[in-house]
Amino acid sequence: MTSLQDLPIRDDLRGKEPYGAPQLDVAVPLNVNENSFAVPADVVRAVQESLAAVLGDLNRYPDREFTALRERLAGYLGDVLERQGGGTDRTSIAPAQVWAANGSNEVLSHILQAFGGPGRSALGFSPSYSMHPLITTSTGAEWISVDRADDFGLDAESAAAAVRDHDPDVVFLCTPNNPTGNGLDLSVVEAVLAEAHGIVIVDEAYAEFARPGFRTALTLLPDHPRLVVSRTMSKAFAFAGARLGYAAADAALIDALRLVRLPYHLSALTQAAACAALDHAPSLLANVDRLVEQRDRMSRALTELGFRVVPSDSNFILFGGVTRPPALWQALLERGVLVRDNGIPGHLRVNAGTEAETTAFVDAITAAVAADPGIVAESSQTAVKGQA
Amino acid sequence: MTSLQDLPIRDDLRGKEPYGAPQLDVAVPLNVNENSFAVPADVVRAVQESLAAVLGDLNRYPDREFTALRERLAGYLGDVLERQGGGTDRTSIAPAQVWAANGSNEVLSHILQAFGGPGRSALGFSPSYSMHPLITTSTGAEWISVDRADDFGLDAESAAAAVRDHDPDVVFLCTPNNPTGNGLDLSVVEAVLAEAHGIVIVDEAYAEFARPGFRTALTLLPDHPRLVVSRTMSKAFAFAGARLGYAAADAALIDALRLVRLPYHLSALTQAAACAALDHAPSLLANVDRLVEQRDRMSRALTELGFRVVPSDSNFILFGGVTRPPALWQALLERGVLVRDNGIPGHLRVNAGTEAETTAFVDAITAAVAADPGIVAESSQTAVKGQA
Repeated sequence: MTSLQDLPIRDDLRGKEPYGAPQLDVAVPLNVNENSFAVPADVVRAVQESLAAVLGDLNRYPDREFTALRERLAGYLGDVLERQGGGTDRTSIAPAQVWAANGSNEVLSHILQAFGGPGRSALGFSPSYSMHPLITTSTGAEWISVDRADDFGLDAESAAAAVRDHDPDVVFLCTPNNPTGNGLDLSVVEAVLAEAHGIVIVDEAYAEFARPGFRTALTLLPDHPRLVVSRTMSKAFAFAGARLGYAAADAALIDALRLVRLPYHLSALTQAAACAALDHAPSLLANVDRLVEQRDRMSRALTELGFRVVPSDSNFILFGGVTRPPALWQALLERGVLVRDNGIPGHLRVNAGTEAETTAFVDAITAAVAADPGIVAESSQTAVKGQA
Repeated sequence: MTSLQDLPIRDDLRGKEPYGAPQLDVAVPLNVNENSFAVPADVVRAVQESLAAVLGDLNRYPDREFTALRERLAGYLGDVLERQGGGTDRTSIAPAQVWAANGSNEVLSHILQAFGGPGRSALGFSPSYSMHPLITTSTGAEWISVDRADDFGLDAESAAAAVRDHDPDVVFLCTPNNPTGNGLDLSVVEAVLAEAHGIVIVDEAYAEFARPGFRTALTLLPDHPRLVVSRTMSKAFAFAGARLGYAAADAALIDALRLVRLPYHLSALTQAAACAALDHAPSLLANVDRLVEQRDRMSRALTELGFRVVPSDSNFILFGGVTRPPALWQALLERGVLVRDNGIPGHLRVNAGTEAETTAFVDAITAAVAADPGIVAESSQTAVKGQA
């Protein structure tokens, strides 16, 4: 029998394991930062009608330029900017400034294919989204990892210094950052833009969950032709199954992506479903506030148990002070709750769920700590006691 | 205003144009080898029901391993093998031997990402599918083009010699070949497999349209762990808008593709739609015979007009003896018929349509030749006269 080792696979892939958040059948899955709320009935109906309208024509290739979808995404981003209250000249995004693909991973992949590649490099601030280095190296570019501060923060000065020192062709800024949950002050993005000679990607997959005061990098687009802001419908829009990531940038940068995307990369089904969903954005986004509420409740419960919670602008929480993350992961799984071990020493990640799911998590972790108090690190407990 | 030239795009992309069969709004589009028959009503209903069943759960990520879809694709390929009447031990394909992605372009891209990359090379026999070199070089691998014979044929001896001389890491064999339409004798595939040290991709996107006697390379899989056969639902299955390409190979080779695909690359919508379509394969494939009939009618008409037709195993025809391809392309467009100029000197490509579309093409080209007899090359006319 042939094994993978017998095949002439690329040297840099040899011995690697596929991306793999475990897909386990559990009662309470809180491991992949999904939106726990099902798509609302009115949106289901609208998507169904939109899909029905294209089924008879599936023998034809889809619109390669996804014109209708671009218009709707531009409209949504214009609304985001308007709510941020930028000047009137900054509240509009043109359809030609918008890109979309099968998940934001594919959007990022297109950007790296156009601006990365052999002999080039991309820099990110770790820990961050695990796909950023994989997407970079898959184009033959080098990955440069710069550590965040001990509290997973990143300030303007040290971010700019890292860019100056390494002079990368692409910089990734993930805000709110996955898997730590915290967002960046816009001054960090501005400092990196001032220093970078290449492309700056601001990955805002979780932006809709951010705390008041968060400012999107979309506001910086008019002055920065090498800035690209990526987003997704997988999180706030509760549309992970439809796989729709998107990005906004200068129209010339977007045009470059047309050189590297595979023709007809967005199916007629994806385009039709996403258009209908965007037409019902307020309905889809209605659960964002409920998830933020559950996130904050989770955060309080974890703090009370003695864990250290990283302040979150996303729909998930990274918590530290875990003496044995794999043991706690297993203890929660045995209680029907699946969380994520991202391999950060002393930490686990969990996303907010419905009220019932969040309660199940809080109950499970409370029971796990009661059964094994040593799972909470001494220093965390001391710190909490010190506060009391 | 920023232009593409101001951006730090990869050097090898500078000055390139995006893939672009023109997307023009014409009465008779016969330029991208689509299946002209709309998806039948019973299949539309089945797809609609299958989609409806997943819409409420779109907040969840799809099955990363597309288990149900793999089973159905394996079943379809087993049926193909059974019709070819291989030995009983050769008529089965396991789900673990099947891969799928958003169009066969993405399938091929995964293969090149796993087995190509910087410092490696892929070889193809030109003219062939224009995406093969683009997909190869996008991974940083080198593209080696070897010319086919003047009649666009390829024999076992010269194919094996090319592989021996260039020693590529990946070989592309396109059969039936796009854009020339002709298929390869299975002995050519066997000769290349015997010579190649790396991966051999047999692109069978158009196999369902082949003339009697065509044998699929699927029959060779049991003995060749480095062979991968790619196919698509875009052509015979009339499902281009849904974007579903697939491939079969040894399970170890398929497993390698899991290292390079982006997680959750196939949406829940794509998986649901393709499953339903495969459950109704006979209904979807019912129009293949009608398209073959129209192709043969087109072929006779073109020959009668004095053009040289490449014998076709696909749903399209490449015809030569055109003195000025752009002029004939334009003359047909003015008569409402869109065909394809692939840049092969003296040739144009046209796909078979419905009976009405095929009649429209035959009428349009007959009129175009009547208006401009010099559009048909002298030698072709002489050859035809010589036969008469």
